[in-house]
Amino acid sequence: MLKVALLGCGTVGSQVARILLEDGDSLAARSGARLELAGIAVRSMDAKRDVDLPRELFTDEAEALVDSADLVVELMGGIEPARSLILRAIRKGASVVTGNKALLAQDGPALFEEADRNNAELSFEAAVAGAIPIIRPIRESLSGDRITRVLGIVNGTTNYILDQMDTTGAAFADALAEAQRLGYAEADPTADVEGHDAAAKAALLATLAFHTPVSLDDVRCEGITKVTAEDIAAAKDSGFVIKLLAIAELVRLGDGDGAEGTSVRVHPTLLPREHPLAAVRGAYNAVFVEAENAGQLMFYGAGAGGRPTASAVMGDLVSTARRLVAGAPGRTDTATRRLPMAGVEGIFTSYSIGLEVADQPGVLSRVAAVFAEHGVSIEAMRQTLGDGAAGAGNSRAELRFVTHRATEKALAETVADIKNLDAVESVTSVLRVEGV
Amino acid sequence: MLKVALLGCGTVGSQVARILLEDGDSLAARSGARLELAGIAVRSMDAKRDVDLPRELFTDEAEALVDSADLVVELMGGIEPARSLILRAIRKGASVVTGNKALLAQDGPALFEEADRNNAELSFEAAVAGAIPIIRPIRESLSGDRITRVLGIVNGTTNYILDQMDTTGAAFADALAEAQRLGYAEADPTADVEGHDAAAKAALLATLAFHTPVSLDDVRCEGITKVTAEDIAAAKDSGFVIKLLAIAELVRLGDGDGAEGTSVRVHPTLLPREHPLAAVRGAYNAVFVEAENAGQLMFYGAGAGGRPTASAVMGDLVSTARRLVAGAPGRTDTATRRLPMAGVEGIFTSYSIGLEVADQPGVLSRVAAVFAEHGVSIEAMRQTLGDGAAGAGNSRAELRFVTHRATEKALAETVADIKNLDAVESVTSVLRVEGV
Ligand SMILES: NC(=O)c1ccc[n+]([C@@H]2O[C@H](COP(=O)([O-])OP(=O)(O)OC[C@H]3O[C@@H](n4cnc5c(N)ncnc54)[C@H](OP(=O)(O)O)[C@@H]3O)[C@@H](O)[C@H]2O)c1
Ligand SMILES: NC(=O)c1ccc[n+]([C@@H]2O[C@H](COP(=O)([O-])OP(=O)(O)OC[C@H]3O[C@@H](n4cnc5c(N)ncnc54)[C@H](OP(=O)(O)O)[C@@H]3O)[C@@H](O)[C@H]2O)c1
Repeated sequence: MLKVALLGCGTVGSQVARILLEDGDSLAARSGARLELAGIAVRSMDAKRDVDLPRELFTDEAEALVDSADLVVELMGGIEPARSLILRAIRKGASVVTGNKALLAQDGPALFEEADRNNAELSFEAAVAGAIPIIRPIRESLSGDRITRVLGIVNGTTNYILDQMDTTGAAFADALAEAQRLGYAEADPTADVEGHDAAAKAALLATLAFHTPVSLDDVRCEGITKVTAEDIAAAKDSGFVIKLLAIAELVRLGDGDGAEGTSVRVHPTLLPREHPLAAVRGAYNAVFVEAENAGQLMFYGAGAGGRPTASAVMGDLVSTARRLVAGAPGRTDTATRRLPMAGVEGIFTSYSIGLEVADQPGVLSRVAAVFAEHGVSIEAMRQTLGDGAAGAGNSRAELRFVTHRATEKALAETVADIKNLDAVESVTSVLRVEGV
Repeated sequence: MLKVALLGCGTVGSQVARILLEDGDSLAARSGARLELAGIAVRSMDAKRDVDLPRELFTDEAEALVDSADLVVELMGGIEPARSLILRAIRKGASVVTGNKALLAQDGPALFEEADRNNAELSFEAAVAGAIPIIRPIRESLSGDRITRVLGIVNGTTNYILDQMDTTGAAFADALAEAQRLGYAEADPTADVEGHDAAAKAALLATLAFHTPVSLDDVRCEGITKVTAEDIAAAKDSGFVIKLLAIAELVRLGDGDGAEGTSVRVHPTLLPREHPLAAVRGAYNAVFVEAENAGQLMFYGAGAGGRPTASAVMGDLVSTARRLVAGAPGRTDTATRRLPMAGVEGIFTSYSIGLEVADQPGVLSRVAAVFAEHGVSIEAMRQTLGDGAAGAGNSRAELRFVTHRATEKALAETVADIKNLDAVESVTSVLRVEGV
C-alpha cells in the first residue's frame, strides 16, 4: 500500500481524488500496490467542490499531510506554498507528481536537481498539454533520436479564439467575449492571450527536447491581441491559418553556421492549411515534433479540463507507484548539456507583412528594393486597391508580402526600413510563417 | 558500458547500427552507459547493405552473439530463428528490443511471461506504428485511465492506396500498381492489402489498451481489395473518406448490457472528413485513442521506413539502458485480466450499404421494411437513377443507405434479407462507418 497526499482540490485535484476513490481496484492491479488517498490539503475546509468526497479527507495542514505520504500530488498551482511543499516532499525522498507549469517554468531546474539528489522523482505530464502524453514520448520514446524542432498549440483558449475568428470572421474582442461566455477564457484572460501560459510550456518542451535548461526568461513571447480579422482573412485567401504556436528549435548560432543553440518563442504564426497542426480546432491542443530519424510526429488531444488533466496526473502516479513497487530509484532527467540561446541572427523564419501604401506608381518597386537590400527574397505578393480611384494620387492600396526564409535580424531590419519609406502609410501586420 | 547484440541488418537494422556508431556520445550521455555494438548477426556475410558498416562487426553466429550481450535488438523478422534467439536472450536475463509484430501477435503472451519470470524486459515500440510513440503512452501515460476504444491507421501501404483512390479517383488495381512502382507496396502485397499486417498490430494494441491477452486469431479481418472507385466516390459525396482501420473496443457482451468484453477487428471504414484520422494522408500512420478521462487523443507520424522505425528501436534501447544503469528490474506488463471476445451481438456499429435495384415503384419501401424488421434505423439514403428511362421498368437505380448504430448481428441479417428481395439485383457494397 502506498499513501498518496493530494495538495489542492480544485478543477483537477477533485477529479484525481474521485478517480483514486472510484478506481481503486484497477489502479492496484496496474500499479502492484493499493494507492490510498491519505488526505487532501485545501485552503478552505468549507469551499463547495465539484464532486462528492468524504469530508474527513480534507485538511488545512498541508505539511503534516506531506510528511505522512509516500507519494505527493501537487495541484494547488502558483509558486508558494506549492514550491516549499514539493521541496519538503522531495527532501524526505517522496516522489511528486505536479501539473504546475508556472512553478516548473520558473524553478524547474532547481527542483529537478533536488529530486535527483534525493533519489526522488518529479513527474509533470499534466503541465504541458493536459491529457496529451508528450513528456514521456519526448523523454523516453525519442531518447535515441535527435529532436530538431517542436511546434505546439499548447493553449486551448487562444486556439479557440483564433479558430472562431477563422470560421466566423469575428474580430478578436468579440471572439474573446464569446470564449469568456462559454468558459473557454477566464475573466482576466491576460495569461492566455498574451502568450504567457504558452511560454511556460515552451520552456518546458525545449528543456526536454534539447536536454538543456531553458527558463521562462529565455522565451520570446508575443500574444494574439494584435491579430485582426483582416490578418485572418488575408491568411485564409492565401491558403493559411493563423495559430498561436510555441516553438522550440535547434539552430546554428552566428549567421547560421556557428555552434549549436536553441531558439524558444511564442507568437501567432501562419501555417499552410495542409499542415497537420492546421486541423487542430477549437480548444484542442497538439504538439508537432520533428526528429532526425523519426521525421514528423504529432500528438493531439485535450490540453486542459479537470478530467483530461487528471488522466495525465494518474498516469504519472501509477508509473511512479510501479517504480516504487519494483524498488527502483527515481530518476528525473536533468539537462545533459547547456546550449546557448540564439540571437536574432540565428533564427531563420519567414514573414508575412501587410502594408498600407499610397496608390502611386513606383511604390511597389521602392518597397521591393528594401527587401533586396537586406537580402530578403519575396515569395509572394498581393495588392488590394483601396477606396479612392486607382492612380488618382489620394487613394491607398494594401500590399501583403510573404518572404522566403531569412534571419529574424534581416527581416526585422527590412520591416523597420519599409516603415520609413514615404509612400508607406503604415505596417499593418507582421506575422511569422512556419511549415512551408 | 553495455554490450548490444544486433540481430538482422536490413532496412531497420542497418539504421540502428548506423545510429549506434554515429551517436555514441549523446546516447551515452542520455543512457548513463556507453552502448557498444558488439556485433551484427546476418544470414549472408556478403550481402550489400544500405549503409557503410565495419565488416568485422558482422557474424553468422547469432547464438554466440546473443550470449555475449547485455542487450539484444532483434530486427530479423519472421518467427524462427527470431523466437528462439529472443527466448535465449531472455533466459539469460538480457533485455530485448524488437520490432517483430508477426512474432508478437502470435507468441506475445508466452514471451512476455518468460521475460517477467527472468526479470528481463521485452520492448517493442517499433512493432505497432513505426516511429509513432504509442506503446509507452498507452502503457504508462494512460495507465491511470480507462481506454475504451482505439482506432488506428497502422498500415501505410493501404493508407497510401486509399488516399490515391480518394484524390485521383483511381481504381484499386491501378492505385496498387502505382504504390508498387513507388516502393510503397511490395511485389506480393497480400499481407498489407488483405489487412493481415494491420490485424497483428490490432492484437497488440488491444492487449495493451485493455490489459488482456488478444491474439491474431481473435481479430476479425477484412482487407481493402473489394473497395471500389464507386465506394470512394459515394463516400466523398456524403462527406466521408474510406480508411482501413484497426479497431479495438471495450464492449458489453450479450445484447449490449452484459459483462465487459472486447472486439478487435480490421476493415475498411467510412469516417467523416472532419474526424482527425481523416486528415492522415499518404503513407502516414495514426492511432486515435478514446479514454474515459483523457477523452480523445491522437498520435501521428511515420509508420514504417528504416530511419523512423530505428528511432523507435533506439528509444526502447536507451530507456532499457537507463533502467539497467539504475539497477532496476525489468517489467514487461502482462495482462492483469482476461476479457472475453464479443460476438456479433456485442458489437455496435453502423453500415453504409450500396444496392443495385430495379427502378420500380415500391422498391424503396420494401427495402425500408427489411431495415425496420430488424430494428435497424436508417440515417440517410441517396438514390441514383441508372441509364434506362425512369419508371420504364427495365432500368436500374442505385440506393446507398447509411444506418444508425445497431448490432453487427442485426446489420448482417438485414443485409442478408435485403439480398433475397426480388427487386434487389445485387448488394454492391457493405462498409462500416465510425466516428459519427
Ligand atoms: N485546470 C486545468 O485544465 C489544468 C490543466 C493543466 C494543468 N493545470 C495545473 O494544475 C494545477 C491545478 O489547477 P486547477 O485548475 O485544479 O486549480 P484550481 O481549480 O484553482 O484549484 C486549486 C486548489 O488548490 C487549493 N489551494 C490553493 N492554494 C492553497 C494553499 N495555499 N493551501 C492549500 N490549498 C490551496 C485550492 O483550495 P480551495 O478550494 O480551498 O481554494 C483549490 O482546491 C495548476 O498548477 C494548473 O496550472 C490545470
Ligand atoms: N521496414 C519497416 O519499415 C518496419 C517497420 C516496423 C517494423 N518492422 C519490423 O522490423 C523487423 C525487420 O524489418 P526489416 O524491414 O529491417 O527487414 P529486412 O530488411 O528484411 O531485414 C532482415 C534482416 O535480418 C537478417 N536475417 C533474416 N533471417 C536471418 C537469420 N535466419 N539469421 C541471421 N540473419 C537473418 C537478414 O540478413 P541478410 O541481409 O543476410 O538477408 C536481414 O539483414 C521485422 O520484424 C519487421 O516486421 C519493419
